[in-house]
Amino acid sequence: MAGPSLTIFFLSLLFFCAISEASKCSVKGLPEVRNISALPQSNYGRGGLAHTTVAGSLLHGLKEVEVWLQTFSPGSGTPIHRHSCEEVFVVLKGSGTLYLAPASHEKSPGKPQEFSIFANSTFHIPVNDAHQVRNTNEHEDLQVLVVISRPPVKVFTYENWFVPHAAAKLKFPYYWDEECLEDEPPPRDEL
Amino acid sequence: MAGPSLTIFFLSLLFFCAISEASKCSVKGLPEVRNISALPQSNYGRGGLAHTTVAGSLLHGLKEVEVWLQTFSPGSGTPIHRHSCEEVFVVLKGSGTLYLAPASHEKSPGKPQEFSIFANSTFHIPVNDAHQVRNTNEHEDLQVLVVISRPPVKVFTYENWFVPHAAAKLKFPYYWDEECLEDEPPPRDEL
Repeated sequence: MAGPSLTIFFLSLLFFCAISEASKCSVKGLPEVRNISALPQSNYGRGGLAHTTVAGSLLHGLKEVEVWLQTFSPGSGTPIHRHSCEEVFVVLKGSGTLYLAPASHEKSPGKPQEFSIFANSTFHIPVNDAHQVRNTNEHEDLQVLVVISRPPVKVFTYENWFVPHAAAKLKFPYYWDEECLEDEPPPRDEL
Repeated sequence: MAGPSLTIFFLSLLFFCAISEASKCSVKGLPEVRNISALPQSNYGRGGLAHTTVAGSLLHGLKEVEVWLQTFSPGSGTPIHRHSCEEVFVVLKGSGTLYLAPASHEKSPGKPQEFSIFANSTFHIPVNDAHQVRNTNEHEDLQVLVVISRPPVKVFTYENWFVPHAAAKLKFPYYWDEECLEDEPPPRDEL
């Protein structure tokens, strides 16, 4: 009886693996209320980052908004980047610095303004303004909730603040959407 | 010298009152990074509620998303309602119950499904699904961050789950937008 039992066991395993594979990017079968601590978390190969898609377009079927939980270890942060969607930050823990350069500055972002950010603070990034959020506090993690409109996000990154807007590099789909959104035509740059 | 000084004092007072009046619903002059604890909070005449617009369309110039911080004391909650925008909740503290009735149920919401919600959980409300969030934990406050799309919110409320969709009552502008959005034509019902 060992043979058939083992076959059934492996067939079941295959079945459940197939379900889990299919549901990774599917809204079907997800519980309505989800424990954020139990959601997938990854650094997507970016040192110092822990990203969780709390409510996502590709993962959870949202079309107009998306919510992320991100933790940056001391010294880490986002790239300098812009996107043609609105973004709101709520700082849950830690502190750091927001660098913000209005997109209208000449042909490149230019020297950004610097703002201190802190636990229980909020700020938003206007559409297409180049910005960077960094954990500039060497003693603790910076944890933020991030809200974006027009998901999935299409990010243009800059190597520095003086790279022309036209030379910013498109990263689409972004790391956390890559598994669920392949072979999509790249979006048009709006700048 | 008392006369001119007093005149100048009252003129200055008038000037600052005028500025403060003008900036209540204006994005101008607001700091880029805001302390959430220092933002206006009110219950808008609704017992058990404390509402703060963390990032708003009328208050902060957002066009696509809005973020609120809401605290419900034990026994309190939202009305039964629906809106033609997406909504994401992140539960920060406490616990409670989500009541959710898909809008497609016949001509009225009908008996809702019930879900336990808890600290560090998240859920979202599909467009036009009637729902209610209540603090059903008698021992502590329920605190949630709420994200909506398509601000300012246009809410249709129900006295109970069996009121026909067509008889739901429009509340627009909603309490926290009333001061900044008067004399706007009511939106069209999408159901």
